[in-house]
Amino acid sequence: MTDVTPTPSYNRRVVLESRPVALPGPENVSLRSEPLGPVAQGGVLVRNRLLSLDPTIRTWMDEGKNYMPPIAVGDVVRALGIGEVVASRSVDFAVGDTVMGIVGVQEYVERDGASAADPSDPTYLVKLDPVASSPEAALSTFGVTGGMTAYFGLLDIGVPKPGETVVVSAAAGSVGSIVGQIAKIKGCRVVGVAGGIEKCRYVVDELGFDACVDHHAADLCRGLLSACPDGIDVYFDNVGGETLDVVLEQINLKARIVLCGAISQYNRSPMRGPDNYFSLFVNRARMEGVLCLDYAERFPEAVAEMVGWLQAGSLKPARVQTEQGIDQFLPAFLRLFSGEHDGKLLLAV
Amino acid sequence: MTDVTPTPSYNRRVVLESRPVALPGPENVSLRSEPLGPVAQGGVLVRNRLLSLDPTIRTWMDEGKNYMPPIAVGDVVRALGIGEVVASRSVDFAVGDTVMGIVGVQEYVERDGASAADPSDPTYLVKLDPVASSPEAALSTFGVTGGMTAYFGLLDIGVPKPGETVVVSAAAGSVGSIVGQIAKIKGCRVVGVAGGIEKCRYVVDELGFDACVDHHAADLCRGLLSACPDGIDVYFDNVGGETLDVVLEQINLKARIVLCGAISQYNRSPMRGPDNYFSLFVNRARMEGVLCLDYAERFPEAVAEMVGWLQAGSLKPARVQTEQGIDQFLPAFLRLFSGEHDGKLLLAV
Repeated sequence: MTDVTPTPSYNRRVVLESRPVALPGPENVSLRSEPLGPVAQGGVLVRNRLLSLDPTIRTWMDEGKNYMPPIAVGDVVRALGIGEVVASRSVDFAVGDTVMGIVGVQEYVERDGASAADPSDPTYLVKLDPVASSPEAALSTFGVTGGMTAYFGLLDIGVPKPGETVVVSAAAGSVGSIVGQIAKIKGCRVVGVAGGIEKCRYVVDELGFDACVDHHAADLCRGLLSACPDGIDVYFDNVGGETLDVVLEQINLKARIVLCGAISQYNRSPMRGPDNYFSLFVNRARMEGVLCLDYAERFPEAVAEMVGWLQAGSLKPARVQTEQGIDQFLPAFLRLFSGEHDGKLLLAV
Repeated sequence: MTDVTPTPSYNRRVVLESRPVALPGPENVSLRSEPLGPVAQGGVLVRNRLLSLDPTIRTWMDEGKNYMPPIAVGDVVRALGIGEVVASRSVDFAVGDTVMGIVGVQEYVERDGASAADPSDPTYLVKLDPVASSPEAALSTFGVTGGMTAYFGLLDIGVPKPGETVVVSAAAGSVGSIVGQIAKIKGCRVVGVAGGIEKCRYVVDELGFDACVDHHAADLCRGLLSACPDGIDVYFDNVGGETLDVVLEQINLKARIVLCGAISQYNRSPMRGPDNYFSLFVNRARMEGVLCLDYAERFPEAVAEMVGWLQAGSLKPARVQTEQGIDQFLPAFLRLFSGEHDGKLLLAV
């Protein structure tokens, strides 16, 4: 803890200029260069290195109730990321520490006051043991938009039993790929839904899913019927839209739908709900939202079990795709919605 | 058990002629007079007296998966009811027995073989102790479309805690009126949604709900906001549609939505789902279907507890409205969807 005035004097940051009504465009976000001030007493300055580009960022750009407050117009776009402490007047951080937190889409994050250890707090910032986990793994396989969501959503909300059929959408993504592998470990039949031949091949051939339905090519209803001859017991939903409706037609008695995301709807206003929702009544089934941040105190338990599976060879890490440069935020972010990315999408800044 | 050839030779029955696409009309159901045969060995003939007109009958008129098979075109319209055994060649029933079962919208029900004690079996028929319960109460306060659904749906799926806010739609109906009263017994703030001033007055003044929002008159969103200043923890849904969407905007963290009915959608094809469903994610809330038939083995437990509440004066029986005559089936049934009825709608035949 030393009183250091930072060498850098400017910070490039991606700022929300206006709320998108559909896909975000250059009119909604801009790259601004802003002066950096001295670090305040108790504060810290972090040089961001790697940002997690998550679909949920799009929901924070909207007004209305969410699990975190909306990003204010004029503020930096909120994002989780990893960086290095370059100046500190805090007892909690030293220069050189690798840290993870809600750092924003910017080159530096300045914290004037205390940082929170709770990942649902917008001032979340914690030290990361650089030996225990690579930055990529910390943001994917062991990350919030990755293994933590997969682990708690599938096991605590989906509660899969051996022999049941588990379907997961966005199956090749950082959450879906781990959901399916954990479901296989738990003795389930696992069927993915993904966009494109390559992603389907990946989850079946490399991750060991029993089947994968390509929603670009197939009649989704027929494809799922064929891949799930005994119906669907657990559906881990990352996409919403038509896929959710088709799954609802094929669920079994007492099925569980884990509501984790709805990427197909994030750029629609209003979102479109599932017309087949009454299948929940017909089948006395359940649909429940999961936010892994609620399980933050149990993250170490999940990490420990997943490390065991990785070492045993029953779990493969999530794929990671890293784009380069803070000026590439918008085109990179849009890849989440076009599906032109593989696994966890990161931005190196 | 005597071998009796029945005196009546004709049975008037309401038959499904074609599947309705919206509200059922005279083209979809007809009153037919059909000859009655002799009672088969092991069979029974019942003179129906009182039929339960339930919204769920409308869903049985549609094709597609349901919790019971669709009514076949050409078959009698399925309905629960109460009657008197007039001829029996079964060891289970004697002439003069009062029975309850799935008897259909007809004057007589002929059973060729064994009857089931399970209310989810289309051959459901059980003896009813005429002293213990009036036919009206057996089909309402203690009935499937009444107290049993209210009791298990609210307590097992809704799991209300003292001090929580419980909202119930179709609040003046045979299910809703009991849901709200049980929620009051459990120490909750109870808010109804009902159609019209009289129904709202009834549930507040006579049943003791804390408030009731008239969806005919009010801005439903504003009305609920005002009646639920602390948000909504449990929603018992009998109606679907706009009400469900408005409630979803106002639910609290970890809210429970009990999916029991969707009467606003039964005459639409396809049904319309809740566009605000993603609020289940935002609030880590749950929506789950309940069918009280799944709890048939526990009905005596519910009846015993409800009898206690009735005797203690903390529960009032459901209101009952009885229409007259099998030829009045269609206009009576349509009252369910216009809301021009009070409480449990019955048809005396």
